[in-house]
Amino acid sequence: MTTPLPPALQDLRALVFDVFGTVVDWRGSLIREGEALAERLDITGVDWAAFADAWRAGYQPAMARVRRGELPWTSIDVLHRGILDRLLDQFRITLPEDEAQAFNLAWHRLEPWPDSRCGLLSLKSRWPVVTLSNGNVALLVDMARHAGLPWDAVFSAELFGHYKPDPEVYLGAARLLAAEPGQVLMVAAHPSDLRAAARCGLRTAYVRRPLEHGPGGAMEPSTPGEFDVEADSFTELARALGC
Amino acid sequence: MTTPLPPALQDLRALVFDVFGTVVDWRGSLIREGEALAERLDITGVDWAAFADAWRAGYQPAMARVRRGELPWTSIDVLHRGILDRLLDQFRITLPEDEAQAFNLAWHRLEPWPDSRCGLLSLKSRWPVVTLSNGNVALLVDMARHAGLPWDAVFSAELFGHYKPDPEVYLGAARLLAAEPGQVLMVAAHPSDLRAAARCGLRTAYVRRPLEHGPGGAMEPSTPGEFDVEADSFTELARALGC
Repeated sequence: MTTPLPPALQDLRALVFDVFGTVVDWRGSLIREGEALAERLDITGVDWAAFADAWRAGYQPAMARVRRGELPWTSIDVLHRGILDRLLDQFRITLPEDEAQAFNLAWHRLEPWPDSRCGLLSLKSRWPVVTLSNGNVALLVDMARHAGLPWDAVFSAELFGHYKPDPEVYLGAARLLAAEPGQVLMVAAHPSDLRAAARCGLRTAYVRRPLEHGPGGAMEPSTPGEFDVEADSFTELARALGC
Repeated sequence: MTTPLPPALQDLRALVFDVFGTVVDWRGSLIREGEALAERLDITGVDWAAFADAWRAGYQPAMARVRRGELPWTSIDVLHRGILDRLLDQFRITLPEDEAQAFNLAWHRLEPWPDSRCGLLSLKSRWPVVTLSNGNVALLVDMARHAGLPWDAVFSAELFGHYKPDPEVYLGAARLLAAEPGQVLMVAAHPSDLRAAARCGLRTAYVRRPLEHGPGGAMEPSTPGEFDVEADSFTELARALGC
């Protein structure tokens, strides 16, 4: 028995996905990368969970500088590297340049949540599944190959010269898909991302990821019924959408 | 035993592919679509091979008008539709609007050459495989889902606002892949496409498709040794590259 689609979703043409936190567990992955680096290079006394949180925390302010026009277009790889260099200093870690470059690419090797791959395959059986991430294209391609994510296409803020939540990103995705905004479903673990998509006319699927910021970490508040569909995993989302 | 890579190709980061004619058999596919349409709507007396050839022949002049700035950016779907409307008139075929729209999407349903899927899977085991086509993104996504083409990403002239052979397309692909042009291998059945890629610094793989224009059809002339690697199929290309 298949569940009937909610009426607002009966004309869907494609699903677009936020990636960091929604598809992949950036925090757990970065902690593991940091611990492996520490073991290999005999670095001691670093709280890698704090390091991961600080690396991620530097990301919104760095993108905001691009969004306000204080910086020209700068890829996430370059923004991540700038934040990394400050954190290495702050955490008193010395890395050779080649190790720093390789560690910065930890963001290209993030691991998916346990349900991501399987849920994407179910959803893909019915609609194209496409990234819509602030991560740059090369990062998203590497990540998909590393993590086995079966994207039909890789859309990035980089294609539009704007970072989410700028409307150009959501509207640009619909345009490339030759779809009306209301025929595109934005899937994200972040209500703020979904609200920006909804303001552009996209449909919204909220997938809760309570462990994104670690056990006991905070989630952005949202109101029940605020989004077209809600789920606790991609497999649950697939079932809710009748796949 | 794996074949050693040619020295010029030892630093490859990604492969980008021309699509129409190189990956898919546009002519055979359009003939079959035309014949199926004719059977269903009881249309007689049309030479569908001539129709397919004329549809394709309208494509270069239409793109050239965009490249010269006589038309603003116009997607291949829209260019194809303009050519189709002229051809329906010329071949004295009357189609209802919904049938004309559906027939125009025949380009989204082109069939791959017999070796395309298998060869791409071999090549993908070692490098990202990415489209670099004048086809619009929605067309390429639909085609990949229809034909089971395992692209890692879908790059289109549409992303760059320029049609091949404009250099913006080849250089834009390298930029999105975070690669130097010399780390990207352009794969195509058309020497003119490869020469334009080489002028931008890309490496070149020539895959001969002698049936692109039908049995006895002409191929663009080329000089032996002109390209970094040559093959008669994607599976042969994969072997030549040591996959």
